[in-house]
Amino acid sequence: MTPEELLVRAPDSHWRTVQPDLLLDVALTTGHVLIELACAFAPVSVARLQTLVRERQFDGAPIARVQDNHVAQWGDLAAREPGLPPEFVRTIDTHATFVSMPDPDTYAPATGFIDGFPVARDAGTGEEWLVHCYGMVGVGRSTDIHSGTGAVLYTVIGQAPRHLDRNATLVGRVVAGMPHLSTLPRGHGPLGFYCEGQSPPVIRSIRLAIDLPAGERASIQVLRTQSPTFRTWLEARRTRTDPWFCVTGGRLDVCSVSIPQREGSRWMAPVST
Amino acid sequence: MTPEELLVRAPDSHWRTVQPDLLLDVALTTGHVLIELACAFAPVSVARLQTLVRERQFDGAPIARVQDNHVAQWGDLAAREPGLPPEFVRTIDTHATFVSMPDPDTYAPATGFIDGFPVARDAGTGEEWLVHCYGMVGVGRSTDIHSGTGAVLYTVIGQAPRHLDRNATLVGRVVAGMPHLSTLPRGHGPLGFYCEGQSPPVIRSIRLAIDLPAGERASIQVLRTQSPTFRTWLEARRTRTDPWFCVTGGRLDVCSVSIPQREGSRWMAPVST
Repeated sequence: MTPEELLVRAPDSHWRTVQPDLLLDVALTTGHVLIELACAFAPVSVARLQTLVRERQFDGAPIARVQDNHVAQWGDLAAREPGLPPEFVRTIDTHATFVSMPDPDTYAPATGFIDGFPVARDAGTGEEWLVHCYGMVGVGRSTDIHSGTGAVLYTVIGQAPRHLDRNATLVGRVVAGMPHLSTLPRGHGPLGFYCEGQSPPVIRSIRLAIDLPAGERASIQVLRTQSPTFRTWLEARRTRTDPWFCVTGGRLDVCSVSIPQREGSRWMAPVST
Repeated sequence: MTPEELLVRAPDSHWRTVQPDLLLDVALTTGHVLIELACAFAPVSVARLQTLVRERQFDGAPIARVQDNHVAQWGDLAAREPGLPPEFVRTIDTHATFVSMPDPDTYAPATGFIDGFPVARDAGTGEEWLVHCYGMVGVGRSTDIHSGTGAVLYTVIGQAPRHLDRNATLVGRVVAGMPHLSTLPRGHGPLGFYCEGQSPPVIRSIRLAIDLPAGERASIQVLRTQSPTFRTWLEARRTRTDPWFCVTGGRLDVCSVSIPQREGSRWMAPVST
């Protein structure tokens, strides 16, 4: 069975709808970006983010920098919110279902997925952490590890910057609309900051889906990564039997996996991740 | 010494100027993309490409597809050129200086750099091959491995699609202007093909730098990957002593390395890779 057929045949119980209180709807002038918040990995930072969103702190905020093959970053660099505790790693959650990747990883002893998020693990230290794959969303900070406020966010728009793993708090993952971020004009300054003469794009608004009227509320379903369908699908992606391939390496990197999802919203942009 | 200081102090002999007969200048409406051709890895395909460019076969060609986090592809899908031999791998060149990456790679027994290109190696089979990192340029083909003509090219614009390694001929690497490709509008069709109602961007022209008048000829220097400076720089990138990092993994993936380069052209776009 092809990976696509596996998804079509997956029973509804193998899919879950992203909770609307954990779904951020970022409205740009070009369309909507949807972010699922990772409350199990970064509870304090996610709660802060929900508060900031409800206070409409991001509405009208400029995109501050877009660095090619790296990140897009937005928000208020001068925010006076108190610093957040670093939620860079957590103790391995033995109750969570960790679907592990069978191949070696350059950066961590083990990688895999927990509840729809890419994760790395080190049994030696007893820690696990979200990894910086394409579309992951993190809290910007300066040198002090307590300096992140939640008012500045970044999204990975290129090759996974895995050296950032365990150095920043990841708070979520883009589940739709990634091209609205990945095609933003790159800033001409160092680190991709916009320079004089470049008009920075602006965030129209960020809302929690649950706070939107029913008719405007996005709905998205993600394949449960602990489901048998996901495990079979992952192995099919890894071993590829498509006749186009003459060499099927039978290898797969955690950041080369686009977790299957399906959309249930009429207004969403036709292009999705 | 920081990685930046290392580069500033590198003697001129550690840099090389890309040969103008191996430098493709791709003019888009937004600016120029420069590609260094990998003649040592794909001599037949590179020679074909040079011929097609001199015949001006790409001038006015539409961008056919742009798939988010994957590739941008252009050229004449109906070209009647004879099929090229697959140059997917080559026998390990024992005369070439292979600067190996010290960390494990998910996809290959060994990775590193040869003459400014990312390479994977398998001592068991005696083969080595260019790898699909961000900015690598390949020859599009259909299922038949001899079906690539050189008239259709693609560039990686997202997470390295390493499953394509050894399945397609890579012919070069973008050395400047990557944002002109990475910010192209994504196509709304399957595989990112442009649909009706989307106006595909167009390649104005592709020229070999050597064929351009001196005043319009781009010039770019790449740090020699066999130089002591590159090796020291690579290790500095791997172990990062910047105080921002609280965890320095001391790990580095071959596709997370942006080979240092410097520009010598007045007209080049201010944004580079």
